[in-house]
Amino acid sequence: MQHTICALATGAGGAVALVRLSGPEVCRILSELTHRSDLPEPRKQTLCTVYDGSEPLDQALITYFKAPHSFTGEDVAEFAVHASPYIKARLLELLCQHGAVPAKRGEFSQRAFLNGKMDLVEAQGLCDLIASGNKAAHKLAMDSLDGKLSARLADMKKRLAELLAQIEVRLDDVDEEMTPLSDEFVQGEIHTVLGHIKALADTFSIGKYIKDGLKTAIVGAPNSGKSSLLNGLVGFDRAIVSDQSGTTRDTVEEILEINGQKIILTDTAGIREHALDPAEKEGMRRSHRAMEAADLILFVLDASRPVTPEEKELWQDIRRQQKRTIVVWNKKDLSANRPELEAASHYPAAAVSCKTGEGLEELKKLITADVTEAQTADGLMISNLRHYEALLRAQTELESALIRLQARAGGEIYAEHLRGALNYLQDLIGEVTPDDVLGIIFSKFCMGK
Amino acid sequence: MQHTICALATGAGGAVALVRLSGPEVCRILSELTHRSDLPEPRKQTLCTVYDGSEPLDQALITYFKAPHSFTGEDVAEFAVHASPYIKARLLELLCQHGAVPAKRGEFSQRAFLNGKMDLVEAQGLCDLIASGNKAAHKLAMDSLDGKLSARLADMKKRLAELLAQIEVRLDDVDEEMTPLSDEFVQGEIHTVLGHIKALADTFSIGKYIKDGLKTAIVGAPNSGKSSLLNGLVGFDRAIVSDQSGTTRDTVEEILEINGQKIILTDTAGIREHALDPAEKEGMRRSHRAMEAADLILFVLDASRPVTPEEKELWQDIRRQQKRTIVVWNKKDLSANRPELEAASHYPAAAVSCKTGEGLEELKKLITADVTEAQTADGLMISNLRHYEALLRAQTELESALIRLQARAGGEIYAEHLRGALNYLQDLIGEVTPDDVLGIIFSKFCMGK
Repeated sequence: MQHTICALATGAGGAVALVRLSGPEVCRILSELTHRSDLPEPRKQTLCTVYDGSEPLDQALITYFKAPHSFTGEDVAEFAVHASPYIKARLLELLCQHGAVPAKRGEFSQRAFLNGKMDLVEAQGLCDLIASGNKAAHKLAMDSLDGKLSARLADMKKRLAELLAQIEVRLDDVDEEMTPLSDEFVQGEIHTVLGHIKALADTFSIGKYIKDGLKTAIVGAPNSGKSSLLNGLVGFDRAIVSDQSGTTRDTVEEILEINGQKIILTDTAGIREHALDPAEKEGMRRSHRAMEAADLILFVLDASRPVTPEEKELWQDIRRQQKRTIVVWNKKDLSANRPELEAASHYPAAAVSCKTGEGLEELKKLITADVTEAQTADGLMISNLRHYEALLRAQTELESALIRLQARAGGEIYAEHLRGALNYLQDLIGEVTPDDVLGIIFSKFCMGK
Repeated sequence: MQHTICALATGAGGAVALVRLSGPEVCRILSELTHRSDLPEPRKQTLCTVYDGSEPLDQALITYFKAPHSFTGEDVAEFAVHASPYIKARLLELLCQHGAVPAKRGEFSQRAFLNGKMDLVEAQGLCDLIASGNKAAHKLAMDSLDGKLSARLADMKKRLAELLAQIEVRLDDVDEEMTPLSDEFVQGEIHTVLGHIKALADTFSIGKYIKDGLKTAIVGAPNSGKSSLLNGLVGFDRAIVSDQSGTTRDTVEEILEINGQKIILTDTAGIREHALDPAEKEGMRRSHRAMEAADLILFVLDASRPVTPEEKELWQDIRRQQKRTIVVWNKKDLSANRPELEAASHYPAAAVSCKTGEGLEELKKLITADVTEAQTADGLMISNLRHYEALLRAQTELESALIRLQARAGGEIYAEHLRGALNYLQDLIGEVTPDDVLGIIFSKFCMGK
């Protein structure tokens, strides 16, 4: 039998705290703690005294949700109590003394999933929703939570399952009484599903940026104004700016929101190949690491002076990274003549002055351009590595099926690949996911959910 | 007209956040944000989509409390939303865009008070309840919140008001048609009320310990084992202990719970009158300050060696403080012969070994003895300075009335003092408290309450 679980669902501090209880023993525990034989009317916030033995612990607003009409699908009780450290701790203690056990992370959501209240994609959306700190991440999670993404996946799954059923029924038809399926029809169906899967898998890079933030490395020669650019984008003096070269020894990270999008800016030490100062050498190593970890590189050049051989060398370095790169001409206010770096001319570029703020808005638009474009499409995206990998695997299986089909292999052979692809889609939604994998997925959720 | 106020009622983090809305515009704002013309059934948690324009912001469980059946006595709505930083911030923003204003600290409670949902003593109990971190403080606040303390005060007030009415009706009785009140009767009544007021005022010192913690200074000669005692009581190695004298230069403060009671332990530097080391001199100054601020002094003596002249001097110093003092004979394990400090023999004393833990439980009982004794009585206490001062003032007025009465002053004169006392009792409950004083009282409450 399932345990009855309890947890604090609200955060530290505040005036009110919510304690949740879910499982088969909810009614008994509720009546023991409130000294009442009648249960509160379901869903109605009812003022009850919660007792610690014979002494009142608190006047709580208790809501009882009768199974299956609750978040978990089980009997649930929510205690809205006064948020004192003593009351919160003591209530959880009392619940456990009366037979409940402390919930594991995500255990309420896991039960909701196991009771069919939501699928795994929706559950993941819920987890992402609670973590979302900006508008874009919030929209992404909402699409997942409210079932839009699940519906899209269910469509693909259905189409594939129907195709597979038609193939399999013919494999069983030993007397060959049925009209065989034409290769063109099978290929067409596979291509359609494959197209949908590819399109969705392709949103992962952008979806990941939205959820986790776009890692942006600011690189450039010493004193080209990297720290000033960071400050200009952040909007206040965060990094220490000095006129001496090489003042940014360590990497400075700053999380900010640009056009509703999370950006993780890393200011790197000035990159010089033959730096004598050991601390600066270490800074350069960090710069390279930051570039390798980055989704986007901002290459800062001083517009008031000619491009140096070191900067040309650095540019080769950046190009080898094969990353999205924006060339930023800094100190626009000091020079009307914007020098050109020949090879960079077909890269997106912005001319800014961190002193006057000129050009910064245009640069911000360039930084978030990819995400903005992606969002003007129908908007459905994936941002979860598990989802991405499942889609890639389904894609590989479908491509293998196509190859077998072209090689005129028998239906048994390519049907096996279609079954594989179907399995990956089912795993994504949580229809065939093993228990231990579920445990790992839900352990990343927050407490009380 | 009253504004409609909104605030986050839960703390940072967590899975669920509660946002509260109270005031005349609740119904309009609720229907605008949920795109519904019908209100949810009162007190029933109803799943609604909260909209940010045309986009869904969240699926929230909304509870509507219809005036006057709510915490504030006004229309109230509670939004239980997913606790994402974005959703919380955006919902509060939306509420304000639709006409609500951010609530000030304690403003919900202040409205509850103004609408007669609770008196000022109960409101203070609510504030103390949320802050309570241990069992004793919790009990104190509950007695205040659930009206036990208010009922006691109301009894006193009623008795005094009835006496005053009898006196005043006779002052108006110019034809002297009524039987005059005997001096014995009036004195008896005043003495009765005075007795109740004094008894309650006397609980303040203990009530204050319970609410704020008992400030306990550990003092003693260098190397007598003060830090070891602190560690023994706290239960782990918090202060750095060394065999060299004078290692505790600064005072170390540790908050702990002993027998359900909050204790603030201060370890002071070894007190030596003629210390040469300037840092140690500063430590001694701190020790004296700690003793002056303390409610209880633990005087630590090394039981394995004779009492020194410096310790005898220190003992005189401690006695001058006229504070509750416990003599602690430390290093019990090193000496079977417990030396005696003659003058200390009638003070409570404990023999302990911090090494073996022997005697520590007895010492803990001694430390909390005052509170434990006070709690075995009927248990009603005050812990709030404002309440204490009001009681003292009422007491002074009643004593003045008694003096006037004995001096055979006219009824007009002593009635004035009775009126004064009545006024202080009414102020305590909040019946005659001016608005600006209310503002100050409630501003000490927490947000969202």
